[in-house]
Amino acid sequence: MKLLRYGPKGQEKPGLLDAQGRIRDLSAHVEDIRGEVLYPEGLRRIAAIDPESLAVVDGNPRLGPCVAGTGKIICIGLNYSDHAAETGATVPPEPIIFMKATSAIVGPNDNVEIPRGSEKTDWEVELGVVIGKPAKYVSEDEAMDYVAGYCLTNDVSERAFQQERHGQWTKGKSCDTFGPLGPWLVTRDEVADPQNLKMWLEVNGHRYQDGTTATMVYGVRFLVSYLSQFMSLQPGDVISTGTPPGVGLGQKPPVFLKANDVVRLGIEGLGEQQQTFIQG
Amino acid sequence: MKLLRYGPKGQEKPGLLDAQGRIRDLSAHVEDIRGEVLYPEGLRRIAAIDPESLAVVDGNPRLGPCVAGTGKIICIGLNYSDHAAETGATVPPEPIIFMKATSAIVGPNDNVEIPRGSEKTDWEVELGVVIGKPAKYVSEDEAMDYVAGYCLTNDVSERAFQQERHGQWTKGKSCDTFGPLGPWLVTRDEVADPQNLKMWLEVNGHRYQDGTTATMVYGVRFLVSYLSQFMSLQPGDVISTGTPPGVGLGQKPPVFLKANDVVRLGIEGLGEQQQTFIQG
Repeated sequence: MKLLRYGPKGQEKPGLLDAQGRIRDLSAHVEDIRGEVLYPEGLRRIAAIDPESLAVVDGNPRLGPCVAGTGKIICIGLNYSDHAAETGATVPPEPIIFMKATSAIVGPNDNVEIPRGSEKTDWEVELGVVIGKPAKYVSEDEAMDYVAGYCLTNDVSERAFQQERHGQWTKGKSCDTFGPLGPWLVTRDEVADPQNLKMWLEVNGHRYQDGTTATMVYGVRFLVSYLSQFMSLQPGDVISTGTPPGVGLGQKPPVFLKANDVVRLGIEGLGEQQQTFIQG
Repeated sequence: MKLLRYGPKGQEKPGLLDAQGRIRDLSAHVEDIRGEVLYPEGLRRIAAIDPESLAVVDGNPRLGPCVAGTGKIICIGLNYSDHAAETGATVPPEPIIFMKATSAIVGPNDNVEIPRGSEKTDWEVELGVVIGKPAKYVSEDEAMDYVAGYCLTNDVSERAFQQERHGQWTKGKSCDTFGPLGPWLVTRDEVADPQNLKMWLEVNGHRYQDGTTATMVYGVRFLVSYLSQFMSLQPGDVISTGTPPGVGLGQKPPVFLKANDVVRLGIEGLGEQQQTFIQG
């Protein structure tokens, strides 16, 4: 299933995308795409609904972030060997983790604000993993049971804030609007192999990132297990699993975003996002 | 005012502490200590209630975290010059910031779990600043208007996870139960000078930390303004402002917590916490 949230900011309703690509209204069945709705049992209940029985949503409403109630966004640093190389870093022997503030979350096509004083706002297409039930000290064998599904994320980053302002990375990752999530939460059953998905990102039509999750260093199964040793993962939490090569910082010379730039990105099977960058 | 939350975990009710130190039930007036209740107008509305008109809560109920709906805990690293010295670090030219996952939040006297595989679980008494209304790009002059009040926090830390597991600090700060908050949210009007509060922490009756917020490098006013340049602060967000000297890592030789250790801590005017450490 492709679950989504549509409507004005803060008033999103739950929906799903039907086989014809139309939004169907789920609000008679669930209050939102969050919490217990994400549990295996909650997803089974939605899967049992005949989409034809749900009202089609007319028009072309704004999409909100595809999941609500996200308690934390855990980001994995330097998790593609070729991206690590372009930034001059080496792949770490264990995952580097940092947080993106949940106040940064926006819809997939909302405007993104370049923060005041920013000169190095950058992009990162990433595979997001949405947690489906509480995970604590889980093994790699059982890790996938805790995954509700996947979504596209843009881990927008301010490189000077991240790297030149005396730490830590969260400082350059948490600006308001730096966390577009969606368009859809694609349930796990629809993604045959999360480690074999093409991903790409374009700025003003120029393709900068053109990668695949196949070159991820620490895969989804490992990450869910690994992170659950350090903290419990809760339904709606998102793991943003790192980015392939082609970020602005890695260009020679570096390229950063400015007002009116348009960023488009996508991951195979997970849909696309498009953001216009504006001055904050 | 001293606002608090009492009752079983996940079912806390709002209350306040009256002049005689008794808990009064606020649940007829507010649903919880969160969101708009923390706005200046929300606090004024509570302040207008005669505590004598509120039912006394009998017995000695568990206290929950003193604020609900916390979207992020932003911690300030090495923010006391003498603590920086004891860890072998120098004071940074700008605040170091990292996040503690909100899934770590517990009540002030709840048990704290030593994570599996931990050998270096440590303590940090800290002044917590509770945000009262949305703050974005605020100046130092206006910063205090965005503070609802203060609370005691123990920024429990696993030093090996934090420092030896290849980054970043959030990895050693976010374990479940590593974020005791409370006992009370003490409103700003009751704290004459947040930069002149005695603070202390004892383990099994031995006093390890005995400091004052007077030696804080970056004070509350500066921090609220500074952080709001990087991300919006929301009602219920907590800034944990760093710890004075005396952490376990700074002892010669280092001292870390083990099961059955009892940690007591306090800050002048903000009450006390007591945690028993247990094996997670």
